[in-house]
Amino acid sequence: MAIHYPNGKKYDSRHESRTDEKKYGYANRGMTLEEDINETNAYYLAHRIAVIHKKPTPVQIVQVDYPHRSAAVIKEAYFKTPSTTDYNGVYKGRYIDFEAKETRNETSFPLKNIHEHQIRHIRDVIDCGGISFLIIRFAKSEEIFLLEGKYLLQFWDRMKAGGRKSIKKEEIAAFGHRIPLGIRPRIDYIRIIDSIYRDILCP
Amino acid sequence: MAIHYPNGKKYDSRHESRTDEKKYGYANRGMTLEEDINETNAYYLAHRIAVIHKKPTPVQIVQVDYPHRSAAVIKEAYFKTPSTTDYNGVYKGRYIDFEAKETRNETSFPLKNIHEHQIRHIRDVIDCGGISFLIIRFAKSEEIFLLEGKYLLQFWDRMKAGGRKSIKKEEIAAFGHRIPLGIRPRIDYIRIIDSIYRDILCP
Repeated sequence: MAIHYPNGKKYDSRHESRTDEKKYGYANRGMTLEEDINETNAYYLAHRIAVIHKKPTPVQIVQVDYPHRSAAVIKEAYFKTPSTTDYNGVYKGRYIDFEAKETRNETSFPLKNIHEHQIRHIRDVIDCGGISFLIIRFAKSEEIFLLEGKYLLQFWDRMKAGGRKSIKKEEIAAFGHRIPLGIRPRIDYIRIIDSIYRDILCP
Repeated sequence: MAIHYPNGKKYDSRHESRTDEKKYGYANRGMTLEEDINETNAYYLAHRIAVIHKKPTPVQIVQVDYPHRSAAVIKEAYFKTPSTTDYNGVYKGRYIDFEAKETRNETSFPLKNIHEHQIRHIRDVIDCGGISFLIIRFAKSEEIFLLEGKYLLQFWDRMKAGGRKSIKKEEIAAFGHRIPLGIRPRIDYIRIIDSIYRDILCP
């Protein structure tokens, strides 16, 4: 079974226990896209704007010890490949679903960053009337874009039809929406959703 | 508004072709509520009715070994208390969010089955226009009910005001909706949602 770590990155427990001082450090360096989005979601939640959470990392648990009655310790477990996207929740009654990805590539977003089963999930969500998108961060230039799921599917299908295996940054800029990095919230993607889906959001 | 179903008959597994004798054995015994709901969600997904998934169990990862490049092993981790409900997803564009609980109590549902932070989450979801509910199974009588989040909050608030620490089964029957155990899907909660929220669901 698949036991690759989801992002292909080593797990860094420091992300779990950052102090505010560290977090809001110089020019945001070392701040990951995930941290920025989690902070944004915390802002939305605190202001009752939207309820969006990152799903826990799926883990296959093999062995659990019970050294004390109150503290079960997982002694053997493996990372599972996520079958959906990372983030979901509700905004103005509508279902919101997205994946967030960073690339160090400067000119395009390689589609190998997205799994086939995530594409399937995105299709399913769109079919059921959900709002699906991708947040892409170009790490070098620090540019962030929101690309609607329907366009991601088109670029995916182009690849499957023998076309390019990535989405050009110009294409993302043309079909997507630039999200300026802010302070509170840091990545205000709901503002973009508000403008794109104004007509279908609930009052 | 309650849908009136034909009198709930007990599920008879002989009507369905099953391979896993142990799991789906005599009179459905041993089948957990979670398994029934997962199977129901798989049915909804396969038929493009709704996309609803159970969230992975949240785990705090402390130590990971990398014996091979492709097989990270989690060597130390702990279970975290979930901060949200277990299930969420999309139906006709709307955000669906619920928790599923079983009780062996025959006359009432003890509110200690629900955590304070889950109540908070349910409030947040309702505030943002999401559809929130609880699926309660009385294990002994095999009765299943759907109770809308707004009523759960009322019973919770009654407890906080010094009232009873449980919801009587009669109250659940009066404010909630009985879900008859079916074959495909097994626990057709979407049918109830359809009738309650007809006016706000997207076409």
